Amino acid sequence: MADPKIILAEISRDLDSRIKLYIKDEHPRNLIEAVRQYPYAGGKRIRPSLVIASCGAVGGEKSKSIPLAVAIEYIHNFTLIHDDIIDGDRERRGMPTSHTKYGTPTAILAGDALFGKAFNVLSELDVSDKDLRRILRSITAAVWDLARGQQMDINNECGRTVTIDDYIETIRLKTGVLFAASAVGGALIGGADDLTIEAICRYATSLGIAFQIFDDILGIAGDPIKTGKSVGNDIRRGKYTAITCHAAESIKDENEMRRFCSIFGKIDSSEEEIGVVRSILERSGSIAYAVRLAEKYSKDAVSELSLLTSSEDKDFMIDLARYAVTRSV
Amino acid sequence: MADPKIILAEISRDLDSRIKLYIKDEHPRNLIEAVRQYPYAGGKRIRPSLVIASCGAVGGEKSKSIPLAVAIEYIHNFTLIHDDIIDGDRERRGMPTSHTKYGTPTAILAGDALFGKAFNVLSELDVSDKDLRRILRSITAAVWDLARGQQMDINNECGRTVTIDDYIETIRLKTGVLFAASAVGGALIGGADDLTIEAICRYATSLGIAFQIFDDILGIAGDPIKTGKSVGNDIRRGKYTAITCHAAESIKDENEMRRFCSIFGKIDSSEEEIGVVRSILERSGSIAYAVRLAEKYSKDAVSELSLLTSSEDKDFMIDLARYAVTRSV
Repeated sequence: MADPKIILAEISRDLDSRIKLYIKDEHPRNLIEAVRQYPYAGGKRIRPSLVIASCGAVGGEKSKSIPLAVAIEYIHNFTLIHDDIIDGDRERRGMPTSHTKYGTPTAILAGDALFGKAFNVLSELDVSDKDLRRILRSITAAVWDLARGQQMDINNECGRTVTIDDYIETIRLKTGVLFAASAVGGALIGGADDLTIEAICRYATSLGIAFQIFDDILGIAGDPIKTGKSVGNDIRRGKYTAITCHAAESIKDENEMRRFCSIFGKIDSSEEEIGVVRSILERSGSIAYAVRLAEKYSKDAVSELSLLTSSEDKDFMIDLARYAVTRSV
Repeated sequence: MADPKIILAEISRDLDSRIKLYIKDEHPRNLIEAVRQYPYAGGKRIRPSLVIASCGAVGGEKSKSIPLAVAIEYIHNFTLIHDDIIDGDRERRGMPTSHTKYGTPTAILAGDALFGKAFNVLSELDVSDKDLRRILRSITAAVWDLARGQQMDINNECGRTVTIDDYIETIRLKTGVLFAASAVGGALIGGADDLTIEAICRYATSLGIAFQIFDDILGIAGDPIKTGKSVGNDIRRGKYTAITCHAAESIKDENEMRRFCSIFGKIDSSEEEIGVVRSILERSGSIAYAVRLAEKYSKDAVSELSLLTSSEDKDFMIDLARYAVTRSV
C-alpha cells in the first residue's frame, strides 16, 4: 500500500492556491479573515482529493474537476465552522475554533458566506448543462442530509439508547453523502457512464462511513497528541459511536454497566473516570468490534472499484480506503 | 396606487403550496419542523413576488419563475433564522424565534438545510445553461454580500460613528443585493435583454435600500402593535440607521447630544429613556430626513422602469416601490 498521506499532501499543495483564489480582499475585514481561517489552515483535504481522483480514475481531465474540489472543500469547512459552534468546541487541531476567535455571530456568518462562495464557484464548472444540474442536485442533497445527520447526532446525545443501525444511518448522512457527492461529481466531470457512477457512489459512501467510524474510534481510543482530539469529550458528551452502541448491548457485568452508565454522558467526568470507561470498553470487546466494522466498510468500498481499469488514481482511491481505517490521525 | 398588499397576498397564496412542496416528511422530525417554521409562517413574500413580477413584466411565462421564487424565499428565511440567533431576538412577528423554540444548534442546522434546499430547487429551473449559471452567480454573490452586510451591521454596533454612506452600503449589501438577484433572476427567466436586466437590477437595488431604510424607521418610529417590533431595541442595541446617522451630525444642542449618547447603545435603557431619544430624533429632524431618503430611493427605483412596456406586473413593481415607503407594517 502506497502512503496516501503523501498523495494527499501533493494534491493539497496544488489545491491551496485555488482555495485561496476565490476569497478576495474585501470589507469587512473581520468577516473575510473568519471565512479564510478554516480553508486556509489546511486539513486532510480528503473530499477534494476524492473529486480529483474520481475524475482521473474514469479517464477524465483532472484539471476540469478543480472548481468542484474547491467548492466541496468550502462546504466541508462551512459545516466544520457551524459544527464547532453547535458542539461548543473551543479548539480544532490545536487552534481556537472560529466562534472562539471571532465570536459566534461572525462564525455563523463566515460559515454562511463560505457556503454561498461554494455554489458561486460551481457556476464556473466546465460541464454540460445536464451534468451541472446533476452535480448541483447531488451536492445540495448532501448538504440537506448533512444537516439531518448532525441533528440526529444531537438527538442521539439526549439519553435514549442508539442502535448500531441508527448510528450507521447518522454517519452515512453526516459523512457518507458528501463523500459520495464528491466522488460522483468528479466522475461526472470525468465523463463516466451511469454504471460506473453508481459504483463510485457506493464506494464513496462506504468510504465515508469507514472514515467516520474510525474517526469516532480515534476520538475514544486514539492518541490525543496525534489526533488533537481530547479523548474524553465524546464520552463526556454521551456521543453514540460504534463502540458505545456495541457496549450498550455487550457489557454483561451489572456493576460494569452501572459504572459505564454513570460516567457516559456526564459532562464533568474526571480523567480517571474516562480511563475507567475506556478499560470497560476494551474488556467488552467494543473497540475491537468497531475496528472490524470500519474495516468491513473499507473492504466494501474497495470492492466497488473492480470495474475501473488500473490507474494511479484508482490505486489512490483503494489506498485511501485502507488509510481510512489504519491512520493514527 | 393599487394596494400591493392585496397582490402580495394573492401571490403568497399561490406560492405557499410550492413552498411546502419541497420540504418532505423526513427524519429527524425536530429538524424538519424547524426548517418549516419560518417559510410556512408566511411573511410579506416580497422577494418571491419580485421574481414573478419581473418575469411577467418583461413578457415571460411567470410559472417558469416559480422555482426561483421559492428558492429565494428559502434563502431569505435561512438568513432570518441565523439573524435571529445573531441578534439574540426571542420573538419574530409575535412567535418565538427558531433558536428560542428549537435551541441554537437546531436553528443553525435548520438555516443550513434551508440554504441547501434553495440551491436544490434551483437545479430544476427550466432555463438555458447560460441563464442557469448567471442566476447561480447572481444569487450566490447575493448570499456572500448579505453576510458582508450583516457583519457590517454587527461592526456598526461597536461604538464607532457610522456615516450615512456606510449605512447605505450596509443595507445595500444586506437587503439590496438579494432584491436585485430576485428581480434579475425573474427577468432572465422571462427572456429580457441585457439593457432591461440592468435597469431592473438598479430598480430592485434601490427598492431594497428604500425598503430597509423604511424598515429601520418603523423600528424606531413605527407602531409596535402593527410592526411587531419592539421600538426601543434598535436604540438599545446602538444600531445605526439613516435616522441615527443624521442625528449624529445634526443635534446641535450639547445637552441633547450628551443625553442621546448616554442612551443610544445602552442595552438596559428604560422605556422612558427610549421616549427621550425618540423626541430628540424628532426635534433634530432626523426621522423626517430618513423618510425623505427612503422616498428618494423609492423614486429612483420607479424611474428605472420607464423602459418597460405597460403591464399589470410593471404596475405592481411601481406600487411596490411606493408601498415600501408608506407602509405601517
